Amino acid sequence: MKNSEQENSLVIYGRQVVLESIQSGRTIDRLLFIEQDHVEGSAKKILTLAKEKHIQIKFISRDRMNQLSDNGKHQGVLAYIAAHAYATLEEIFEKAEKKNEPPFILVLDGIEDPHNLGAIMRTAYSAGVHGIIIPKNRAVSLTATVAKTSAGAIEYISVCKVTNIVRTMKILKEKGLWITGSDVKGTSMYDVDFKGSIALVIGSEGKGMGQLVKEKCDFIASIPMKGEIGSLNASVAAGILMYEAVRQRG
Amino acid sequence: MKNSEQENSLVIYGRQVVLESIQSGRTIDRLLFIEQDHVEGSAKKILTLAKEKHIQIKFISRDRMNQLSDNGKHQGVLAYIAAHAYATLEEIFEKAEKKNEPPFILVLDGIEDPHNLGAIMRTAYSAGVHGIIIPKNRAVSLTATVAKTSAGAIEYISVCKVTNIVRTMKILKEKGLWITGSDVKGTSMYDVDFKGSIALVIGSEGKGMGQLVKEKCDFIASIPMKGEIGSLNASVAAGILMYEAVRQRG
Repeated sequence: MKNSEQENSLVIYGRQVVLESIQSGRTIDRLLFIEQDHVEGSAKKILTLAKEKHIQIKFISRDRMNQLSDNGKHQGVLAYIAAHAYATLEEIFEKAEKKNEPPFILVLDGIEDPHNLGAIMRTAYSAGVHGIIIPKNRAVSLTATVAKTSAGAIEYISVCKVTNIVRTMKILKEKGLWITGSDVKGTSMYDVDFKGSIALVIGSEGKGMGQLVKEKCDFIASIPMKGEIGSLNASVAAGILMYEAVRQRG
Repeated sequence: MKNSEQENSLVIYGRQVVLESIQSGRTIDRLLFIEQDHVEGSAKKILTLAKEKHIQIKFISRDRMNQLSDNGKHQGVLAYIAAHAYATLEEIFEKAEKKNEPPFILVLDGIEDPHNLGAIMRTAYSAGVHGIIIPKNRAVSLTATVAKTSAGAIEYISVCKVTNIVRTMKILKEKGLWITGSDVKGTSMYDVDFKGSIALVIGSEGKGMGQLVKEKCDFIASIPMKGEIGSLNASVAAGILMYEAVRQRG
């Protein structure tokens, strides 16, 4: 699944095109410059604007940029455009408020496979989740493959991309949410209380939740396992946990 | 997902190789001959043996066989080998009996995507399902991709491949099982009784359960949906339904 984000994202390059995209308000997932380059002129303008808008910036080799742009006229600037705009945390809370429901938020700590993210978005939408929080780094973004796998759910479910999951969990707690993580070692999900204002945290495919994320959780829920194999597919596990919450929330 | 079964299966060809594979007891998923050929000599021997062993036989064009064998010396005979041996229905019932549990069987009416089948096998194993029933036609078999996606579960969960799902459902009923199908239109799964001896039927990715299969079900269970999009990913839906059964079965 390496490079899946890049391969499936809409790529644009060239100073004028990238600048206009940012100015027009399109959601840029990541902006790339060449590390050896002295960023100046319109490239500098792009860099300044990107920093203002908190767009993720990365410096790569010229060879890599030639490759990513298929040897196009990139002029040292290349951007990945998201398949859909991101929501703010405030918008997610507003959604819950509008529906007159206690917030039900999903936090994904590093889902890397676009098919998993798409399937999770689809389930989250069906389960009445008000919004999904994903990290900026080491995780898949709203790429074209995610959009396709979500089977339309990308148009309905709010996704908020944050710099630091742990810091965001702190904000969720301040807003009165109980946070339940998921792990193979934990309380049976049937015994965890998913009622009221909650956030459910799902870890990454290979490694589960990060240590700091785990420590920030109020409870850890486990899916009961009868076999000797210790894990389920991430999107299946997320679906089972979300629907246990749906059952309890009635 | 077209041809996914073929692309990911182990392919063998040539009369001697195929004949020896069948005689050695390896599980052949499908045996192919050329439609224009007059089947004779050792090819006829293979055909007779295959019929005895109820192996699925198909006739294709010479061009197609050249393509499938990568222009190898196929001698008009090509076979797909399963990544794992299939179980019999009896073996599935024996598994339940050995564990002293009422049978919990999963019936998959036409899952086509090997990733879905692999993920479902993984979940089924974790949920304590005693065996899975899949149809011979219009569905993915135990291919290499299925084995990989099952993350080891293929070694533990029994899969029985049957010619006719509806006929097998009749046998399940005769054995005292209650059969619950799944569909977007049905009783909420929380109100369906999954206790005792049961079979749970999951339809195919695109079309759901076939009409005849649906008619054979005692109950139809639905996953409650809050959004406007009417379906979940097949492996996620299967996981949610299986774990509602796990919860009720205690």
